[in-house]
Amino acid sequence: MATTESSLSQEISEQTALVTKLKADNSETSLVEEARKKLAELKKNLNLLKNAASGGKDTGKKKERLLLKTAKGTRDYGPGEMFCREHVERIIKDCFTTYGGSQLDTPVFERRDILTDKYGEDAKLIFDLMDQGGEQLSLRYDHTVPLARYLAMTLSNSPQSKLWQVGKVYRRDNPVMSKGRMREFSQADFDISGSWDTMIPDAEILSLLCTILTRLDIGEFTVKLNHRKILDGIFEVCGVPAEKIRSISSAVDKLDKLPWSEVKKEMCEEKGLDSSTADKIGEYVKRKGGEDLLTILLSDTVLIANENAKQGLSEMSELIMLLKAYKVADKVSFDMSLARGLDYYTGIIYEAIVADSAPPGFKVDATADALEAAPKTKKKPAKKGKEAEDEEDIDESTVGVGSIAAGGRYDNLVSSLISAAAGEGKKSTGVPCVGVSIGLDRIFAILYPKWIEKGMRQKETFAFVMAAGDGILEERVKLVTELREAGVKADFLAKTKPKLPTQFTAGEKDEVPFAIILGGEELKEGLVTVKEQKWEMKEGKKTKIESSDKGVKIKRDELVQWLKSSQTYSDWQTGKW
Amino acid sequence: MATTESSLSQEISEQTALVTKLKADNSETSLVEEARKKLAELKKNLNLLKNAASGGKDTGKKKERLLLKTAKGTRDYGPGEMFCREHVERIIKDCFTTYGGSQLDTPVFERRDILTDKYGEDAKLIFDLMDQGGEQLSLRYDHTVPLARYLAMTLSNSPQSKLWQVGKVYRRDNPVMSKGRMREFSQADFDISGSWDTMIPDAEILSLLCTILTRLDIGEFTVKLNHRKILDGIFEVCGVPAEKIRSISSAVDKLDKLPWSEVKKEMCEEKGLDSSTADKIGEYVKRKGGEDLLTILLSDTVLIANENAKQGLSEMSELIMLLKAYKVADKVSFDMSLARGLDYYTGIIYEAIVADSAPPGFKVDATADALEAAPKTKKKPAKKGKEAEDEEDIDESTVGVGSIAAGGRYDNLVSSLISAAAGEGKKSTGVPCVGVSIGLDRIFAILYPKWIEKGMRQKETFAFVMAAGDGILEERVKLVTELREAGVKADFLAKTKPKLPTQFTAGEKDEVPFAIILGGEELKEGLVTVKEQKWEMKEGKKTKIESSDKGVKIKRDELVQWLKSSQTYSDWQTGKW
Repeated sequence: MATTESSLSQEISEQTALVTKLKADNSETSLVEEARKKLAELKKNLNLLKNAASGGKDTGKKKERLLLKTAKGTRDYGPGEMFCREHVERIIKDCFTTYGGSQLDTPVFERRDILTDKYGEDAKLIFDLMDQGGEQLSLRYDHTVPLARYLAMTLSNSPQSKLWQVGKVYRRDNPVMSKGRMREFSQADFDISGSWDTMIPDAEILSLLCTILTRLDIGEFTVKLNHRKILDGIFEVCGVPAEKIRSISSAVDKLDKLPWSEVKKEMCEEKGLDSSTADKIGEYVKRKGGEDLLTILLSDTVLIANENAKQGLSEMSELIMLLKAYKVADKVSFDMSLARGLDYYTGIIYEAIVADSAPPGFKVDATADALEAAPKTKKKPAKKGKEAEDEEDIDESTVGVGSIAAGGRYDNLVSSLISAAAGEGKKSTGVPCVGVSIGLDRIFAILYPKWIEKGMRQKETFAFVMAAGDGILEERVKLVTELREAGVKADFLAKTKPKLPTQFTAGEKDEVPFAIILGGEELKEGLVTVKEQKWEMKEGKKTKIESSDKGVKIKRDELVQWLKSSQTYSDWQTGKW
Repeated sequence: MATTESSLSQEISEQTALVTKLKADNSETSLVEEARKKLAELKKNLNLLKNAASGGKDTGKKKERLLLKTAKGTRDYGPGEMFCREHVERIIKDCFTTYGGSQLDTPVFERRDILTDKYGEDAKLIFDLMDQGGEQLSLRYDHTVPLARYLAMTLSNSPQSKLWQVGKVYRRDNPVMSKGRMREFSQADFDISGSWDTMIPDAEILSLLCTILTRLDIGEFTVKLNHRKILDGIFEVCGVPAEKIRSISSAVDKLDKLPWSEVKKEMCEEKGLDSSTADKIGEYVKRKGGEDLLTILLSDTVLIANENAKQGLSEMSELIMLLKAYKVADKVSFDMSLARGLDYYTGIIYEAIVADSAPPGFKVDATADALEAAPKTKKKPAKKGKEAEDEEDIDESTVGVGSIAAGGRYDNLVSSLISAAAGEGKKSTGVPCVGVSIGLDRIFAILYPKWIEKGMRQKETFAFVMAAGDGILEERVKLVTELREAGVKADFLAKTKPKLPTQFTAGEKDEVPFAIILGGEELKEGLVTVKEQKWEMKEGKKTKIESSDKGVKIKRDELVQWLKSSQTYSDWQTGKW
């Protein structure tokens, strides 16, 4: 029963993905409706099953059954999915090293006080470990704070560095699984720390981000860009009191999912800002554009008289100049409503979005300040029982994948850790940092359906060794071993005397390009038969192209060389295939 | 101060590794003594610092300082270390796919009841998450139980599979950091599940293990091999009561670190076995050997009359035949004292050890039953305060790296999960499994010192673009971008107007093989200067070989092509360099 329940859940998540996809592709209404109906049916069945499993209304005191599932907000990734995820990670890691980065790995959990006071009100989303004697520990919430801890600890060793990390981070958020919003999720971070000349590392990071998104072939994307100092300058010029700047800033950040009237309401009614001050802010933050916008702002004498705004605008000009040399200026859009949630940003801030990935009027955030932008949850009638607190479901169809990467400059985080360790009153010289976090699950959520649609391979096995006739186990093992030693990924069916069609089926499941057939008589003559197999997508299904030929006979001793000199092998080695 | 404390800890762990290495290499006594003295000095300094940091005896109520460190039993891996670890992982993953494996990824935490009753008395080492509302969760203890859960959930999809996982697992054990025994550690698992013909998957796994250890170039290794059914048969034949078989088995497993007299004492005094029964067992389990030993046992009419022993011996014979075809029979040693701790093994069991990696008379276990074999801890006087419970230090110098991989056949684990989910009395058909766990931290602990000694590179950057003269920032950015687009890993110094020697120093730190120098005048002529740089180890230090030549002048437009057609580039691409 549990098996059925879990396979039903799997079907539901696949069907949900299908419905989303059909809608995204503007498919025919009838198709969408049909898919939707099937989804409702599946959900109903799951509920029936769950009720049956819990024994209906009054089961008495039966021994509790084990629930075979992963923890809420987490999931397994099976072979096909991992093949795609590895492909994504490989590209990202290659870009990271191409840009001169070195890898860092920090533990999944940290001493709790390292994480304290870094995430504002989102701190409630931190997973804590149980007190089992010893230290108080928590699962890491992002890669940025562990990196800052590492930099604070090793400062003397490398004052300037490019470090990258790929790994899982943890947030007790409300998951939206089909969109890649999880409690356990993977981020790939790249950070440049240390004293460099202005805007060069910032431009490196933006160039890196654009290179990665281009190489991932994720579709049209835009990197929205702003500068904390420009924002602060605007707020000062408009007359926002210093103590309200951060809270007004976070109201502004909602402009991409709420109309101005709502944002203004929040500023004035909730946060007590003058209506006229809010209107002045509105005139600025509603603007988006490119270099033209920068030129307009630079000629704004009121704004330019403000020290913060002046510095921010001057840095933005330098940045744009550099982005042109990096050939990515066209990917970047200056968006004055981008504010980002985290307090620690001190310079430029940015986030990457994929065109049309989010429904209009909505925003979900991949990174540090995800929570701010969390979709409204539909509260269900209060549940009793111990899991009640944890049960707020989100209507997944209203949530887009949202931003797929984000980051900014944070010049004070490392020094604040060093000061805290040195004790009261001690100041540390700063370690300026700029970095980006790429949300791997969001990217996977976008790429995997395309991957499936294109019928991409899910396994690398290159040759499948088979027996015609009486098993010939030892010969099969010897040949497979020889192939593997030569670097040819090879497999065979682990049966003593398998039938030939069974072996072909096994090889076809792996979409193996070469079937190698051993026959007793042929082997005596020193020969083996090789059949090349090709597949193509037919009506959304991977289908083997039947060829009439019976394969070629190759000398057993020359087989490895023959395979390795085939065109297919060299295509396979260079990743074309 | 915190910085100094952490850098001291780092020095201590390096010095500890050095002492161990010197001893392992049988270096001159004076050298060992000197290294030991320095270690003692460092430890003393650390204690002084710690006392100073905690403010001596009575500091009163100062605001508590942040302790800048990783959690106990965990550590960061910096750039050089990660370069080596990635190298190890890349080889292992390549072997996994060469053997037809597909990747699986499961969450770091599981619903607690999935892990319950799987680890016997070691269950106390499981890290639990705090109850923050919702599910009861624990960090995974190994990859085997999550894999079994995955198989139980997805059974209908793929009845036969080769799955691998690489990732971190967690145990609240007493860490021995310098030997790679950690609370957070990485394991690479490969498992074959489903119904195959006898011993073929088992032989595949052993062949895979030997291939990996050979390709890692870890030094001479042996795979110790035994069979649970042979052991059970021996116990039955010798007259051990059924209910004592598992506990006597775990006593036998200690034979590689305790003399027979001690093991016998444990059997008789602690576990209440007859002395004569113990002696009979002793006659069997003290034996080690190859096929010869198998032949002797097969002619032991008393033993062969036992059903378990007969089946185990027959399977061992089949296995040895297959291992010959796989060309790994010489790596495997039949060791009748190998019993392994976990209850769930049902067939062959094995563990790989590296020659001379463990001091004689001692054993540390890399995998599931690590605890059983844990070294005796030196209890210090009881501490007060909240971390007391967590503070048992181990004398690291007495601990070897121990076994670096282990595994076996476990045919009932998946079906027991399915039965538990289906409810009382329901039986599930079995899903036979056989697998291996490779301890990545132990392998790293062995390989990294060699890696350093050989002066292996720690970064992949291939070209460093420099400016002679007035900065030429834009030209440098353009060239770096062009190189990166062409797949050449390239970097430059992020300064507006850096001095040439500073740029050379930065490039040398990365051991970059090509320095590309841009000069204003040369650029006008369309030329750049390229200098190839080589390094070698001199007196344990990486040294640049000074060449007298001034470099070659290459046309700017042909530079990328020129670099990519160099011998160094093709060596670099094929990993020779």
